[in-house]
Amino acid sequence: MNGRLQRLRTRLHERQLDALLVTQPENRRYLTGFTGSAGTVVVTPERALLLVDFRYVEQAGREAPGLEIVPAKNRLEEDLKPLLREVGGRRWGFESTHVTVAQHEKLRPLFQEAGIELEGVEGLVEGLRAIKEPEELALVREAIRVTDEAFEHFLRWVRPGVTEREAAWELEKTMRENGAEALAFPIIVASGPNGAMPHHRAGDRPLQRGEPIVIDMGAVYQGYQADMTRTICLGEADGRFWEIYRLVRAAQERAEAGIRAGMPSAEADGLAREMIAAAGYGEQFGHGLGHSIGLSTHEMPQLSPRFHDPLPAGCTVTVEPGIYLPGWGGVRIEDVVLVREDGAEVLTRSSKEPLVVV
Amino acid sequence: MNGRLQRLRTRLHERQLDALLVTQPENRRYLTGFTGSAGTVVVTPERALLLVDFRYVEQAGREAPGLEIVPAKNRLEEDLKPLLREVGGRRWGFESTHVTVAQHEKLRPLFQEAGIELEGVEGLVEGLRAIKEPEELALVREAIRVTDEAFEHFLRWVRPGVTEREAAWELEKTMRENGAEALAFPIIVASGPNGAMPHHRAGDRPLQRGEPIVIDMGAVYQGYQADMTRTICLGEADGRFWEIYRLVRAAQERAEAGIRAGMPSAEADGLAREMIAAAGYGEQFGHGLGHSIGLSTHEMPQLSPRFHDPLPAGCTVTVEPGIYLPGWGGVRIEDVVLVREDGAEVLTRSSKEPLVVV
Repeated sequence: MNGRLQRLRTRLHERQLDALLVTQPENRRYLTGFTGSAGTVVVTPERALLLVDFRYVEQAGREAPGLEIVPAKNRLEEDLKPLLREVGGRRWGFESTHVTVAQHEKLRPLFQEAGIELEGVEGLVEGLRAIKEPEELALVREAIRVTDEAFEHFLRWVRPGVTEREAAWELEKTMRENGAEALAFPIIVASGPNGAMPHHRAGDRPLQRGEPIVIDMGAVYQGYQADMTRTICLGEADGRFWEIYRLVRAAQERAEAGIRAGMPSAEADGLAREMIAAAGYGEQFGHGLGHSIGLSTHEMPQLSPRFHDPLPAGCTVTVEPGIYLPGWGGVRIEDVVLVREDGAEVLTRSSKEPLVVV
Repeated sequence: MNGRLQRLRTRLHERQLDALLVTQPENRRYLTGFTGSAGTVVVTPERALLLVDFRYVEQAGREAPGLEIVPAKNRLEEDLKPLLREVGGRRWGFESTHVTVAQHEKLRPLFQEAGIELEGVEGLVEGLRAIKEPEELALVREAIRVTDEAFEHFLRWVRPGVTEREAAWELEKTMRENGAEALAFPIIVASGPNGAMPHHRAGDRPLQRGEPIVIDMGAVYQGYQADMTRTICLGEADGRFWEIYRLVRAAQERAEAGIRAGMPSAEADGLAREMIAAAGYGEQFGHGLGHSIGLSTHEMPQLSPRFHDPLPAGCTVTVEPGIYLPGWGGVRIEDVVLVREDGAEVLTRSSKEPLVVV
C-alpha cells in the first residue's frame, strides 16, 4: 500500500493539497487494505490515518498495519475536529463524487472555523486505481478463472426447462464453492424476449430451445471483480439468431483486435459501434462498449462515445457490444481485456460458440 | 404505491415544495415499485415521473405501471432540462443525504437558469418508510421466516471443525434455496476471539467446542430484509460464557418487554444498556441497541443513546445488545420486533438456547 500512498502524495503535491479525506469505500480499501464497511482515511505528505468506529478498530489494526488507526464515531464532523488542529495545513481535499451535500454541510463550518480551505476533488484515487499493479492483475485473473470455470460447468449442466433463476443459482453456487468470496453483481440470465432488457435479472421463465439466452456473471476474488457475458442457444438456432450473433461477435473481435493504450475511449468504442451501425443496428446498441473493472465492477476509464481521454496502459476494461430487439431478445458478448501498448490481451477464456448441445 | 405518493405529496405541501427529486435507490423502489439499479423519480402534486435509461425502459413500464416513464441518459443535469420547463414551479427538493456534492454542482446552474429554487431535504421518504404497511409487514415476516428456518437447519448441521466460512455458506445456501432472493448482508460467523469484532465476517478458523460463536444473518424477500443474531456454544459452555450470555439475554428481554410506541429511542436503548452497564460491561457494549429494517438493513429510527424522537407505532426495529471482550470473544443476541402502542411484538422465532449438542 505504501507505493499507492506515495503516488497519491505526488498528486496532492501537484494540486497543492495539504491533506485528502478519502471516504469512498473502494478507494479506502485500495489505499489501506482495510476491508470494513465504514471509515475515513486522511492522507498528508507525512502521515496516513484511518478513522474507524468501535466495530472495526481491531480489524483495521490487522488489515492496515502501516496506518495510524484512530478510534472514531462515524460522525466525521466530530471525529475530524482534533485532527484538524493537529494536522493543520491550508487546503484539504474531499471526494466530491462520494461526499453527500448533507455531509458537506456538516464539514464546512468545521473547516471554516479551523481556517482551512475544503476543496472538492474528483478521480484522484480512481486515477491511480485505473492502472493495475501486477499483484492486482493476478487477482483479476483469478476472479476471471473462477468465472470461466463456472460457465464451463454450466454448459454441461444446462437443459431446456430449467428456469432463469435456477440457472443463475447453479452458476452462483459453482462460483462460490470454487473460490469466489462474492458475486460482482446479481447474475443475469435473460432468456428469449427478456434478453431485450440489458439488465433483466433472472426470473421464473423456463429456458427454451432455439431462443437467445444472455448470461452475465462475475466472481469476486479478494475484492477484485470479473465480468463476463455470453449468449447461448439450446439445441438449435435460426437464421435471425445467427445474423445477430455473428454481427455482435465480429464487432467485439474487431474491438479486441484494435484496442491499444493511447487510443481515445470513444475511438475504442467506435471500433465495435461502427460495425453494428453499418449493419443497421446502431439504435439497438444503446450502451457504451465497456467499463474498467477492478475493486469495483464499474470504474474509469469507460469505453463510450462520451469519453475522449486516451486509454492508459495497464487498465482492465470490458468489451461488451450488444444488440437488443424488443419482443425477440438480445445478444451480448463480453470479455475483460488488459490494455497494453501493443494491443489488448483478452483475459476471459470462456467459449464463444453459442450453440449448446442438449 | 398510490397511497405512498399521496402521503409524500402531503409532506411536499407542508414544506411548500412544488416537486421532489428522488434518487436514493430504496426510496425510488418504495415510491414506484421499480427495482432497477438507476433512475430518478420526480413527484409533483399532480404527476409522478420515472426517468430511466435505455437498459430499464421496458422493465420500468412493467414494474411501475402508475408512473410516467421518461427515457433518460443517467445524466440528470441533461435529463431534467426539458422537465424543468414543462413542470415548472418555484421550489424543488432533492435528497441531500444521497445527492453528492459533485452532482449538486451540476444541478445548481440548471435550476438557477430556470429560476427554480433547489432545496436539500432529509428523511422525507424515509419518514414514510419507517411505518410499515400491512403488505410490507407480510414481506418482513416472510424474510424472517426464511432466516429462522435456515438457522434451525444449521443447528442440526453444525459440528466442531467446520470453518466459519463453511458455516456461513451452509446458512446462505439454505436461505437462498428456500426463498431468499439475496442476503441482507454478508453472513457473520465469528468464533472464539473473532467474536470480539462485532463485524468480523467469516474466515478460515474452524469452530471449536466451548467457545462463543456469533452468527448474524438475514434473508431478503421481495426487497424486504431480515436481521438476526444468535450466539451459540458447541458441546459445552463454561462459567464465563454463561455469565456474559445470561446478561446479554436478560438485557435483550428487558428491552423487548419494555419497548412501545411513543418511547424516545434513547430510552429504549437504555432499557438494555442500563442493565449491561450495571453489571460492569457498559464499555464493552459499544454500539446502539438497534436499527429499523425494511427495504434497507439500516433505516431510521435507530435505537441509540444519540436519538431522542419517540418511536412511531408500526416501525420494525432490531433489538441487539452485545458484549465484546478482546481475546475471548463476543455475545450478541438480535431479534426484529414490531413496535406497537401496547408493546413490542417479537417477530424473530429462532431459539435462544445457546448450547448445541454435538
